[in-house]
Amino acid sequence: MLSFREKILESYRKKNSVLCVGLDPALPSQRKSNVIPSKYLDERNENKSRLNFCLSLVEATSKYCVAFKPNQQYVAGFTLEDHRKLTTAIRAAGCVSILDYKLNDIGDSIESAVFHIKRWGYDAITFNPFLGNIESTVNLAHSGDQKLGIIVLTLTSNPETVRYQKETKLNGKPIYLVVAEDVRRYEADGCVVGATGHVTVDEIKAIRNAAGSDKIFLVPGVGTQKGDPQKVVESGGNVLINVSRDVDYSESPGEKAKEYTELFRSLGAKFT
Amino acid sequence: MLSFREKILESYRKKNSVLCVGLDPALPSQRKSNVIPSKYLDERNENKSRLNFCLSLVEATSKYCVAFKPNQQYVAGFTLEDHRKLTTAIRAAGCVSILDYKLNDIGDSIESAVFHIKRWGYDAITFNPFLGNIESTVNLAHSGDQKLGIIVLTLTSNPETVRYQKETKLNGKPIYLVVAEDVRRYEADGCVVGATGHVTVDEIKAIRNAAGSDKIFLVPGVGTQKGDPQKVVESGGNVLINVSRDVDYSESPGEKAKEYTELFRSLGAKFT
Repeated sequence: MLSFREKILESYRKKNSVLCVGLDPALPSQRKSNVIPSKYLDERNENKSRLNFCLSLVEATSKYCVAFKPNQQYVAGFTLEDHRKLTTAIRAAGCVSILDYKLNDIGDSIESAVFHIKRWGYDAITFNPFLGNIESTVNLAHSGDQKLGIIVLTLTSNPETVRYQKETKLNGKPIYLVVAEDVRRYEADGCVVGATGHVTVDEIKAIRNAAGSDKIFLVPGVGTQKGDPQKVVESGGNVLINVSRDVDYSESPGEKAKEYTELFRSLGAKFT
Repeated sequence: MLSFREKILESYRKKNSVLCVGLDPALPSQRKSNVIPSKYLDERNENKSRLNFCLSLVEATSKYCVAFKPNQQYVAGFTLEDHRKLTTAIRAAGCVSILDYKLNDIGDSIESAVFHIKRWGYDAITFNPFLGNIESTVNLAHSGDQKLGIIVLTLTSNPETVRYQKETKLNGKPIYLVVAEDVRRYEADGCVVGATGHVTVDEIKAIRNAAGSDKIFLVPGVGTQKGDPQKVVESGGNVLINVSRDVDYSESPGEKAKEYTELFRSLGAKFT
């Protein structure tokens, strides 16, 4: 079977887009705005409500994006069948599926997570390196017929990670660069790299240099979170730019996805 | 409603035990040994199989333990209803429930996770600090009628965390001590502290000193993982010692839980 990188490239050739649509389905009881529109709601079944909404977004936007990224915190409670319906629809639309799961655990528990997530049908997951275990997780995820990509949280854009990821050092080196080196050494598939506020073009270039030019950078924080796609595009190719709320809760998700795809294309973003 | 600490103390007074039974239900298709016994299996429904097994463990062991800790990687795919059945049974048995979720995310996604997990009925979750956000997560988890405890991964016992948690430093201080200080500063409920191999009594004492004497230490790695309960007990009180496989897959989980409870009691472990 194809590697995660090969799947992204295959989808990219068809779509000519670097847009990843994040799927963050919020129930009406969950918050005041940006919630699932009433037409998708099934009062007796919250999973069906969330799944219907996600499937409608896949249908509306798959022409203009290369990947979809459901966030675990929003699809919490989905069953094997729910996940399979979603990943099947994403694949049928010619796109790649990334579960934003932020996996972190030890030995047997990592094995259990990879077992379940492979059966759910995802092409890749995100991974948090605080417990180490990048090498063993990558080996397990890449073993067998089904290759599950591992995209490692490297430098995120929320303010507190200045302290926890930049100022925190191993032998004098910021921990985000140590993570980027581990991504190369252990052959993980990519890095999650923020695009907002404190993250600079120089830092993104340093991560690219450490991780390798072939790694996929997944860049969240664009759209409602006011990220700066230019920063990431400037730092080189192989960047997957994620937009969630600004597409999901738009009056016309298809139009919004098209706008973002054209914006990123105009900035020169591409996969190579 | 009671805080997590108050719930633990209330349960402790009834049970006189510091044992937490980890619930790691593995499907027979998942691995070769330590899988759910056939009498609990429903071929058409993997959630029911896992839930049946967990409920049987609660029934068999609740007399000898103070808490149960389902691991997210093993209960992946559980629905709202599955989680509620499990947390309801744990509460009815006079015990406390901790979802070993290792939450790590940003703003809205943290809110979504806390929304779902509170509805599932858990008393606490584990939390990974690599993205920061301890303060905002604690505030959210403790807000409202239902107080969700936050237990922060501080120093884990797998070999790779020597590099990622001890040798990695913020202003010359090992990051695990920075995390322990943040637990105190932001009023989180406790720390996850390993008990095996590289973790020393002095390190556990340093964490206790930084985090505060009232924090609950959740200590995994005892039992099959050959942890050293003595180490943690020596470091002071308020320690919840977790055993998973060695109880779950014992021929007599109740007897096994009783043995561990008596062992920990004989070492002088207690809540204060």
